Amino acid sequence: MLPGVGVFGIGSTARVLVPLLKAEGFEVHALWGRSEEEARCLAEELGIPFHTSRSDDVLLHQDVDLVCIYVPPSMTRQIAVKALGIGKNVVCEKAATAVDSFKMVTAARYYPQLLSIMGNTLRFLPAFVAMRQLLVEGYVGEVQVCDVRVYGPSLLDQSYGWTCEELMGGGGLHTVGSAIIDLLSFLTGARAQRVHGLLRTFVQQNVSIRGIRRVTSDDFCFFQMLMGGTVSSSGGVCCTVTLNFNMPGSFVHEVMVVGSSGRLVVRGTELFGQNNGSKGEELLLGDSGWAGPEVREMPLPHLQGLSAMVKSLRQSFQAHEERRSWARGPVAMAPTFEDGLYVQTVVEAVKRSSCTGEWECVEVMSQEPDPNHNLCEALQRNKN
Amino acid sequence: MLPGVGVFGIGSTARVLVPLLKAEGFEVHALWGRSEEEARCLAEELGIPFHTSRSDDVLLHQDVDLVCIYVPPSMTRQIAVKALGIGKNVVCEKAATAVDSFKMVTAARYYPQLLSIMGNTLRFLPAFVAMRQLLVEGYVGEVQVCDVRVYGPSLLDQSYGWTCEELMGGGGLHTVGSAIIDLLSFLTGARAQRVHGLLRTFVQQNVSIRGIRRVTSDDFCFFQMLMGGTVSSSGGVCCTVTLNFNMPGSFVHEVMVVGSSGRLVVRGTELFGQNNGSKGEELLLGDSGWAGPEVREMPLPHLQGLSAMVKSLRQSFQAHEERRSWARGPVAMAPTFEDGLYVQTVVEAVKRSSCTGEWECVEVMSQEPDPNHNLCEALQRNKN
Repeated sequence: MLPGVGVFGIGSTARVLVPLLKAEGFEVHALWGRSEEEARCLAEELGIPFHTSRSDDVLLHQDVDLVCIYVPPSMTRQIAVKALGIGKNVVCEKAATAVDSFKMVTAARYYPQLLSIMGNTLRFLPAFVAMRQLLVEGYVGEVQVCDVRVYGPSLLDQSYGWTCEELMGGGGLHTVGSAIIDLLSFLTGARAQRVHGLLRTFVQQNVSIRGIRRVTSDDFCFFQMLMGGTVSSSGGVCCTVTLNFNMPGSFVHEVMVVGSSGRLVVRGTELFGQNNGSKGEELLLGDSGWAGPEVREMPLPHLQGLSAMVKSLRQSFQAHEERRSWARGPVAMAPTFEDGLYVQTVVEAVKRSSCTGEWECVEVMSQEPDPNHNLCEALQRNKN
Repeated sequence: MLPGVGVFGIGSTARVLVPLLKAEGFEVHALWGRSEEEARCLAEELGIPFHTSRSDDVLLHQDVDLVCIYVPPSMTRQIAVKALGIGKNVVCEKAATAVDSFKMVTAARYYPQLLSIMGNTLRFLPAFVAMRQLLVEGYVGEVQVCDVRVYGPSLLDQSYGWTCEELMGGGGLHTVGSAIIDLLSFLTGARAQRVHGLLRTFVQQNVSIRGIRRVTSDDFCFFQMLMGGTVSSSGGVCCTVTLNFNMPGSFVHEVMVVGSSGRLVVRGTELFGQNNGSKGEELLLGDSGWAGPEVREMPLPHLQGLSAMVKSLRQSFQAHEERRSWARGPVAMAPTFEDGLYVQTVVEAVKRSSCTGEWECVEVMSQEPDPNHNLCEALQRNKN
């Protein structure tokens, strides 16, 4: 039996998610928006019976068993941790910092019977599922290089907000790069050990962001990851990722994996492959013909990935009679909160590398940093 | 009046060059090859009246006024410097080291009336000439990012030789990367100030290179250059270059320049452009329909660039009555030996960066290093 759903967020993802959930048979009972007015508008538009601007009203709603959190990064942790505490299943967008991600991991570990997955959706895109399968089967031989590029128009909102602020989780690296980092560890079965990166903000002001305000989030980012042992490689895999969001009118989303005996590449939502022996590429998985909504702000790979994730959620819950119970199988490939922490750790290491100019190690937090750490250090300094 | 030409080298470039020279009306009088036998074979095939394995026989040949040097990097400096000393005009492939490049610069400075240009040919490709013109005219606005990728099959020779050895000038960075480094400074009008890179040799042995022999030259290289002030940019331009020669059956040669108001991209030999306002790319310069020879080892951009360079050489010499005199205009955009030194300096900085993991400064040699430097240091150490 499918659980009732509560949705947090009124952005483009939430707007797309609700129809996708309904199409799969989920009932969306409640919508949360930052302001009462915004929540009311979208609830009416999408036909959701209840709306609010108070998060508890959704979390404590008796018909809500699954909470989907698609809000700005700085707000995800608080809602996700609370939702788990109340006993709700959670699908959640990324957090703003590794510390927040760690708190989410702690909560998820505490309630292992509850579903807790990251709302990052490229893993579910059929082209990437097929790519991973072929990598495991040895289509490319030993994996050597992953080369990713995403080009597109600006990620900034029309008005000043979190998308402009690096510290609020804005920027190409945090928004798009994190999905790529997760995807590459899904595809290669390995995690980044060392990273090097360069971030730039070429457009610091525009028509709507001016005066004393400046954009601090990156619109160009370029990073390399050296991965550990992988599904099909004993040596280290080099990943290079180029993100450029100063290209209005373009949309390029290309993920290439090169190995010792061939290569695979996903362009947009299609998978191509080539063996070293063959003369040209072959189409391995074509576009399925997307019949769902088109969203200007949301590229097709993310949109179709989101749709596939909702289908998997349906399968996961359908398997059980009880509304809150779910089967692990259909969502086994979803990124966990642990994966979310890893991704956030890589994002922060790349940012650090961009400042220091050096290769930075990726060390995933295993303990929450002591909030009094800085204070202690200051006391220590005073003593000496 | 066109000068008589002597050609050094029996590789694929020399094999293509001779017919191109003849088609423009140059007479090729002499051919040098490493062995008498190889030289004889190719001379017969190409209809060159004189062949030798002794370099002086070409350099001192009375009908030779222009020397084209297309030999392995470790041999270029010696022939080029000697040719200038004898009073011959020189077109020369890159050297193996910055010290060798510096010696070539010194010779070129000493004989400013002689033509001395690098045989690096991407600058002459019509698509890049047009791209540069559009950049100067402000087509893309302020230049932000240059993004280059070259993918192709292995660069190794069939048998073991200099292409396998990093110290002999083999590898993707030295062979192909150097042409890209030169091209990017031509396009942006700026030079790299700091570089960061990563080199890999994924294939260390193959069917013909085995046993105790190992390839040391890179088959994957990935570097970034931060450029100084440019033709249309006050800030720094970020260049990212990805070279991958583990992709048999592919040939990708793509140079993209992204600016504040649009972008230009050369794919193969065609130029495309897009303004930020427009919906799609427009073809700005199509393929001219190459009627010349097809060469498996030589990608079309290099082949057509070489052809365009030979045309410019013809125009340069045609302007004068005297066989050895030439006009600067038609070859003004050719890379000088000074450019060759710059390129070699960047190549070495990228290699250094790959070892240290750090950003390396590009400092072009202004004085030949003292050959007794190490000795002096040793003496110094002993004294203390």
